[in-house]
Amino acid sequence: MVSFLMTIRQATEQDIPLILGFIRQLAEYERLSHEAVMTEATLRESLFGPRPHAEVLLAYAGDKPVGSAVFFHNFSTFIGRPGLYLEDLFVIPEMRGKGFGRAMLVELARIARDRKCGRFEWAVLDWNEPAIQFYKNLGAVPMNEWTIFRVTGDALDRLANTAVKNC
Amino acid sequence: MVSFLMTIRQATEQDIPLILGFIRQLAEYERLSHEAVMTEATLRESLFGPRPHAEVLLAYAGDKPVGSAVFFHNFSTFIGRPGLYLEDLFVIPEMRGKGFGRAMLVELARIARDRKCGRFEWAVLDWNEPAIQFYKNLGAVPMNEWTIFRVTGDALDRLANTAVKNC
Repeated sequence: MVSFLMTIRQATEQDIPLILGFIRQLAEYERLSHEAVMTEATLRESLFGPRPHAEVLLAYAGDKPVGSAVFFHNFSTFIGRPGLYLEDLFVIPEMRGKGFGRAMLVELARIARDRKCGRFEWAVLDWNEPAIQFYKNLGAVPMNEWTIFRVTGDALDRLANTAVKNC
Repeated sequence: MVSFLMTIRQATEQDIPLILGFIRQLAEYERLSHEAVMTEATLRESLFGPRPHAEVLLAYAGDKPVGSAVFFHNFSTFIGRPGLYLEDLFVIPEMRGKGFGRAMLVELARIARDRKCGRFEWAVLDWNEPAIQFYKNLGAVPMNEWTIFRVTGDALDRLANTAVKNC
């Protein structure tokens, strides 16, 4: 049995190629590669520009990067405070089942607690049973009564261009 | 038929009591009043503190405030850009069906477009059929294959306190 030191650290601008590689692999796993149009430039602007929109944790086995977690702060009106939202969690296939995903979730829970967030949330694909069981075991509750609605692309343009009449 | 001027403007710190009142009414409508623990102080800190976590639009009929929209920016790794997330949309019962909700959604779509957001999203309770039909008519697509998982309260503390072992 090989043993190695597991470390988790916050990503910096130098890690963009690594982050991009992990996002591409995650898109393949989720069968959503056709939706993955991000580039190093869009990531640089969004993660390390004047107004950062997300943060990234990187997981290492010794000195080998093996996974990433992309997160940002959302907001709960009912709590009146920010929450922590995990957008993506990824571990390379050959290192799954060794505790890296769990370690990143624990680190994110600590960040949520330290920043006084009322909630820690993420979305899961309904067919991903292994992930669902794993998350339930960590104390996460599925918000089964809610569905996300999304407007994007041409539909977003049409909505933005809708004339609004006075009543 | 009474006619009135419909206007939509960005809320300021002076509007906090008004915003709090609308959130409380929305919580009642969603049968979630027990979860609505926000106060003027938490809203002031989160909306107008050093690091704002959300923004608010207010809708007026003439000079009477009739509704609100609370939103923030999320982030899509696949697009590599921020999105706009609508956390709450509320119109007072006696002014529903007159176009205020639609006008706020159109204004949010414009903000999303102006800020180069790739997506405009929100969550809907599955039993809220009138809202679901209204959103579909505006071009929104339900993300039926995703479920949000949430960790909060004691479960969040337990997760944050989990020991992480090296493998």
